[in-house]
Amino acid sequence: MRYVYLFNEGNAQMRSLLGGKGANLAEMTNIGLPVPFGLTISTDACRDYYKSGAKLPEGLVDEVMRNLREVEAKTGKRFGDPDNPLLVSVRSGAVFSMPGMMDTILNLGLNPVTFKAIAKLTNNLWFACDTYRRFIQMFSDVVMGISKEKFEEILQERKTAQGVKLDQELSVESMQIVIERSKELYKKELGKDFPDDVNEQLILAIEAVFRSWNNHRAIVYRNLNKIDHNLGTAVNIQSMVFGNMGNNSGSGVAFSRNPSTGENKLYGEYLLNAQGEDVVAGVRTPHPIDRMAEEMPDIDKQFRAIAKKLEDHYHDMQDIELTIERGKLYILQTRNGKRTAQAALKIACDMVAEGLIDKKEALLRIDPEHLSHVLHRQLDTSAKVPVLASGLPASPGAASGSVVFDANEAEHLGRTGAKVILVRVETTPDDIHGIVQSQGILTSRGGMTSHAAVVTRGMGKPCVCGCEAIKVDYAQQQFSVGDVVVKKGDSISIDGTTGRVILGVVPLKDPELSEEYKTILTWADEVRTLKVRANADTPEDAEKSRAFGAEGIGLTRTEHMFMAQERLPHVQQMILASNTEERIAALRPLEKMQEEDFYGIFKAMEGLPVCVRLLDPPLHEFLPSLQKLLVETAELRVRGNDPKALEEKERLLELVARLHEVNPMLGHRGCRLGITYPEVYEMQMRAIFNAAARLTLEGYKVLPEVEIPLTMSKAEMEMLKERCDRIAKECMEERKATFSYMCGSMIELPRAALLAGEIAESAEFFSFGTNDLTQTCFGFSRDDAEGKFLPAYLQQHILKENPFAVLDRKGVGRLMQIAIEEGRKTRPGLMFGICGEHGGDPSSVEFCHQIGLDLVSCSPYRIPIARLAAAQAALKYPREGK
Amino acid sequence: MRYVYLFNEGNAQMRSLLGGKGANLAEMTNIGLPVPFGLTISTDACRDYYKSGAKLPEGLVDEVMRNLREVEAKTGKRFGDPDNPLLVSVRSGAVFSMPGMMDTILNLGLNPVTFKAIAKLTNNLWFACDTYRRFIQMFSDVVMGISKEKFEEILQERKTAQGVKLDQELSVESMQIVIERSKELYKKELGKDFPDDVNEQLILAIEAVFRSWNNHRAIVYRNLNKIDHNLGTAVNIQSMVFGNMGNNSGSGVAFSRNPSTGENKLYGEYLLNAQGEDVVAGVRTPHPIDRMAEEMPDIDKQFRAIAKKLEDHYHDMQDIELTIERGKLYILQTRNGKRTAQAALKIACDMVAEGLIDKKEALLRIDPEHLSHVLHRQLDTSAKVPVLASGLPASPGAASGSVVFDANEAEHLGRTGAKVILVRVETTPDDIHGIVQSQGILTSRGGMTSHAAVVTRGMGKPCVCGCEAIKVDYAQQQFSVGDVVVKKGDSISIDGTTGRVILGVVPLKDPELSEEYKTILTWADEVRTLKVRANADTPEDAEKSRAFGAEGIGLTRTEHMFMAQERLPHVQQMILASNTEERIAALRPLEKMQEEDFYGIFKAMEGLPVCVRLLDPPLHEFLPSLQKLLVETAELRVRGNDPKALEEKERLLELVARLHEVNPMLGHRGCRLGITYPEVYEMQMRAIFNAAARLTLEGYKVLPEVEIPLTMSKAEMEMLKERCDRIAKECMEERKATFSYMCGSMIELPRAALLAGEIAESAEFFSFGTNDLTQTCFGFSRDDAEGKFLPAYLQQHILKENPFAVLDRKGVGRLMQIAIEEGRKTRPGLMFGICGEHGGDPSSVEFCHQIGLDLVSCSPYRIPIARLAAAQAALKYPREGK
Repeated sequence: MRYVYLFNEGNAQMRSLLGGKGANLAEMTNIGLPVPFGLTISTDACRDYYKSGAKLPEGLVDEVMRNLREVEAKTGKRFGDPDNPLLVSVRSGAVFSMPGMMDTILNLGLNPVTFKAIAKLTNNLWFACDTYRRFIQMFSDVVMGISKEKFEEILQERKTAQGVKLDQELSVESMQIVIERSKELYKKELGKDFPDDVNEQLILAIEAVFRSWNNHRAIVYRNLNKIDHNLGTAVNIQSMVFGNMGNNSGSGVAFSRNPSTGENKLYGEYLLNAQGEDVVAGVRTPHPIDRMAEEMPDIDKQFRAIAKKLEDHYHDMQDIELTIERGKLYILQTRNGKRTAQAALKIACDMVAEGLIDKKEALLRIDPEHLSHVLHRQLDTSAKVPVLASGLPASPGAASGSVVFDANEAEHLGRTGAKVILVRVETTPDDIHGIVQSQGILTSRGGMTSHAAVVTRGMGKPCVCGCEAIKVDYAQQQFSVGDVVVKKGDSISIDGTTGRVILGVVPLKDPELSEEYKTILTWADEVRTLKVRANADTPEDAEKSRAFGAEGIGLTRTEHMFMAQERLPHVQQMILASNTEERIAALRPLEKMQEEDFYGIFKAMEGLPVCVRLLDPPLHEFLPSLQKLLVETAELRVRGNDPKALEEKERLLELVARLHEVNPMLGHRGCRLGITYPEVYEMQMRAIFNAAARLTLEGYKVLPEVEIPLTMSKAEMEMLKERCDRIAKECMEERKATFSYMCGSMIELPRAALLAGEIAESAEFFSFGTNDLTQTCFGFSRDDAEGKFLPAYLQQHILKENPFAVLDRKGVGRLMQIAIEEGRKTRPGLMFGICGEHGGDPSSVEFCHQIGLDLVSCSPYRIPIARLAAAQAALKYPREGK
Repeated sequence: MRYVYLFNEGNAQMRSLLGGKGANLAEMTNIGLPVPFGLTISTDACRDYYKSGAKLPEGLVDEVMRNLREVEAKTGKRFGDPDNPLLVSVRSGAVFSMPGMMDTILNLGLNPVTFKAIAKLTNNLWFACDTYRRFIQMFSDVVMGISKEKFEEILQERKTAQGVKLDQELSVESMQIVIERSKELYKKELGKDFPDDVNEQLILAIEAVFRSWNNHRAIVYRNLNKIDHNLGTAVNIQSMVFGNMGNNSGSGVAFSRNPSTGENKLYGEYLLNAQGEDVVAGVRTPHPIDRMAEEMPDIDKQFRAIAKKLEDHYHDMQDIELTIERGKLYILQTRNGKRTAQAALKIACDMVAEGLIDKKEALLRIDPEHLSHVLHRQLDTSAKVPVLASGLPASPGAASGSVVFDANEAEHLGRTGAKVILVRVETTPDDIHGIVQSQGILTSRGGMTSHAAVVTRGMGKPCVCGCEAIKVDYAQQQFSVGDVVVKKGDSISIDGTTGRVILGVVPLKDPELSEEYKTILTWADEVRTLKVRANADTPEDAEKSRAFGAEGIGLTRTEHMFMAQERLPHVQQMILASNTEERIAALRPLEKMQEEDFYGIFKAMEGLPVCVRLLDPPLHEFLPSLQKLLVETAELRVRGNDPKALEEKERLLELVARLHEVNPMLGHRGCRLGITYPEVYEMQMRAIFNAAARLTLEGYKVLPEVEIPLTMSKAEMEMLKERCDRIAKECMEERKATFSYMCGSMIELPRAALLAGEIAESAEFFSFGTNDLTQTCFGFSRDDAEGKFLPAYLQQHILKENPFAVLDRKGVGRLMQIAIEEGRKTRPGLMFGICGEHGGDPSSVEFCHQIGLDLVSCSPYRIPIARLAAAQAALKYPREGK
């Protein structure tokens, strides 16, 4: 097995073998750029290193040494040579960029002999000393694990002794003392001498890089960025060049275009007489790259040409490291540059205009998640912010305001124009009026599907949920995080995109929907085959969705309509009715209201389909909490001073207790309600069809779809479809209006997927409710899992992703595939959609495209993301005939 | 389409077309038995009747009339003939026997003209009157829906007027008055005359029989007996014979063998000068059939020969209806006779001995469910008992005793030898000591998986659960059902086989395991391929299981071991531990106890495998109830007189609230506990392997199997399998003992079934936990469904069966099939079992055999049932090579 490749033996396509850095160094070498020569040890070697129990694979050292001879030949220097020694850098290089996560050793190959040779060759003893000192410190820290602070102390001591402030002011004698003391420290810590054998140095350094693949921060980074832990890293051994050899030397970092704005103009900074790390360290302030035209006009010209060449070569904006050694320019690294969302959009569009890439490539360049940055107000990233606590990023965007703890107060203050952040342990439907008037919401409890999260996402309002670090004290009207107490009226900022909570007001950036944003989405719409609809429950949301490009509504949740303050009493009356007549009477006013709801939504979506899900949650969700009632009843009973109130409370308690369920998620909800209380669904069906009939008569085109939630058998669907058809017929006849409609099934239970072939006999469409399907397929209650065992499962790699965020393809996805295959067999034209939260997640959208869904539905603010993700999926996995 | 078949055109195989009765009448006709001739309208006609909206199918009437001419030809009588009229009976006849559930009309064809002819022909005006009167009453009741009580009143009036007691004592004049008054009643009720047109009578009667297929009691009966509602009934039109034509006439019912004991001796009763219904009515006491030898020796000889012939023909014990008309014997019906469990066993064994059937046939004859009758004490069925209330038949068997409401009192009284029934709203682990000392348990709340149900089934103790009609009042120490109040100390009886609760002491029959029982089970063991294991949690249960024929233990639930009173404090300490060290300390005493548990069980099952499931339920199940704590805390807070108690209670409340889950079924339980608290599973694994090691050293053969509950991925199983192997190795090395063991996965989540191919890489066996698999596949929480919507689903035929009682083949079963197929592909020798409640249900056992499971596991008392069911499955669906 071959492990080692010289830079002129590789290319950019060998990324998985040579790592990103190695592949790019090879590519640059081959296109004739001035890259210090070197070699790359492949990721195979790293994997074999771990396979054999953290031992270097057999033969590797020999192979490295053999190839090192080639590097010597190319550079004319020799490793450990007393006259013209080769010094090298040893750096990690993973397949996917993991900036700063793994180890680097510079200046390797120094010992007392080669040190003297360097001093002599450069005619610069101070430089040789500094280089040697840096190497000892870096090697000791990175390879042997001696804290670098201890070496910095030695340096500081000397500066104090000499009475100077900067390293450069130290005398050569001081530098030599530092070198001696550093070697003594090494011996004291490890009980042996600092290795002078350059081959030993090299082998230890290679092992250290392999080890660093699994250091703590690398693992955390990979978890965060969903990088496979089994990829391993390559090792790059490259001949050193020095930017710190005087004022005709220097180091810099530059982007071929502006990474913040996307402007097509070189952007970056450099420092004269400095190594690369000095540019980043911030001790001296680097110069903007534009200054180079004055300071080193030749180099500047060369570099601009190279930057252009690299961009032309890679067809993407480049992030380039350069070093100038005594007037000669070297390129140390290039990679595709990270950029802001807006820059990504602009660069992609510009490059299409420049003919560098085509539209397809432009679409694939944009991270769909990035679009959410340009849709919401964001914290101004130029400002560094002190984070007080972190919660779940429940609804994206940022907001600042003064803290209030009560929804009424939030509403009152909000109406007067004050900017408030409503802070609650959790929110309930009773808080809606306060949420509407707040800038953002912060809760200490509840997950990504808590009331606050769902409601704010619908409104496009920032929300941080389940921020358990904050202790809310309603009585004192304050919350605390450790010792920090935040009182009512204090200002905070929240960032719903990341989950951060910040003390004080942080500047915000308004969203700006650039021309490029619109262009990219137009291109996306041209290629995607998946339709994108919105989850929207109100006419306002419907209009917003339309503006975001929704092609219909994929999910209107009617329960939110039941939760409004003025409706809840009717709903409760309906639930607590002791017989059918009472229930029908209580439903009558609700029917009028629902009809107006649907009228508004259908009108807003004129010409587009609107899918309405009939009542889904268990009825006790509309009643006061059992726990609260238990406490209140106990209190009244002990007090004994209000027998009438007690009696009333006990009556209510008994009713609520009767409706109480051990596992409400698996309980009396969904179409089970429609079957046991037929009048409830009949009311909703009438409201839908009467609204549709009215609009039809007014000349609007309406396309209602009635969705039956939580079906698990054909019999359920059959019964409810018949009821739906009967009521539609009645409404059309009564109003003398004709319109078409569909009635379909929400597939959100494993059994529904497994029996899809039968259910499709009655259902005209399937909408996958992947939230519930994930819950039942995994046996995970989302409410419980996210707070209890799911974090441990992700940390211990039992799960790669939170299945509620990213659709589980093997389990949930397989059920969907079964349902599609068998449903389509029964009814060839069956329409398939998804309306769970996954409908707005790019990876899930890709899967939905792959398995042949017709549409995805997501919250309004995710629509642009879904449109782009659908386009990318269509480009990666073209459907037949496309 | 042909609808009508003469008796000589059918045979016993045409049951689904002609119904059971029609097919048998045809069969008997063809083998030359004296069957009054007639015709059968097929079940097709009934189905078409319902399809066309309850209208007689076109052409049916003509076809009936055409065939009726054949009956006339055969009998020499004519329908409606003024001289020699044919009278007929019109009876329902379903495919599966539904005794007494549907309608029968006798003597049809009478009107003023034919009445006179009958009087003349029989020379018996009284008889003619009686027959006419009966016909009017029956037709009015059955066909036209006029309550028969109203006709009985007319008859009673005449008896009073005449001053006599029996119908036979009425004068002919009185009878004629009764006939007139009955016709007047008919006209008053329906506004039209009683139909004299015999064809009209016939058509109305046929329609009435079709209608009766869907009368309320027929639907209830079919639901109870799992008969398809779409089968429809046939209609038999048979020429009448009369047992009430004097003392040379009579009617009787006889079984070819004793249906109570199985003794091979004719058994039955008859009445002279009576129609069939008189034998059953109980006005006159019938004679035992043996008396016929004296009273009618000729007929007796003929009948015995026919009974023997029928038994030989049908190879089964027959239930025969006979009528003697003026010295001539007629057979009106024969069918396989219903019998007690013991009779079924004896008849099957005897018939094998007699060479009438083979062993295979004998095995298929026994309803496996019947075996539970011979395993438990039963109410003496000869006694008629007044039922006070009905609950769920939670644990079979019957018991009588005096009522107590407190477990301590039950224990105290029980120990003194008193027979008590413990009555509770529901039971908890705190009540175990009282349950042990009680004869039986009655609860007003909780389903088939409630604590009381599970615990008592394990003990083989009768239990009626969820008897909502009883209102338990602990304060008054009484319960009430409507107006009936049962106080502490009053006697009641409960029947856990049927769910009945009876006031007072009812005689009980002890179980007797007859020779035939043993023979049948020996035969069963010879043919079955499925192994049968027991679910058992204690050494006592293990021994009991062995006695019942268990071939190992398929499920030892360790959580019951945690629930014992003396252990709960340790368990709670473990749960409330604030760090790992505290938790390990609390686990130490538990480990010792668990080791002893396993030691006892393994020893009892020496040489047989024992599968131990690691801790499964969410931890809060071991803690006080949140609701109770909320109330107690509120009370203490308002009282304000015990700040210390309040503080302690609040602390506990906070801890319990933290562990509280919204959907505990889908929460932090099963192997999720083993992964987040590794020390808990490690403790259990050590206890298992140390017990195994000790026994091995003592010379016992042990075969422990470690079962990981609630797996949903390979990563979980892999991690826990590695842990299991490590601990096994440690224990074996430490104790210097070697034994083999297995580690497998409980497949109880859809995702586990879908990913079985991967999980099988680590799992050495799969055990299907079909209780949980049913819950997640359907999205039904059993605790909630059975009390809330499941009854409606069964009633409305959305579900044919309760999926928690009978395995759902289409959904849950399909998941099992996927798991078996893909698990076996990965690991060809993979062992498959089932340990949910379905393991003891015959239909589910059959399915388990069909899909290729290796074993079923069920509660000890279900083992004989599972053995027989497995044998029947093997006979019906032979596996290759068998």
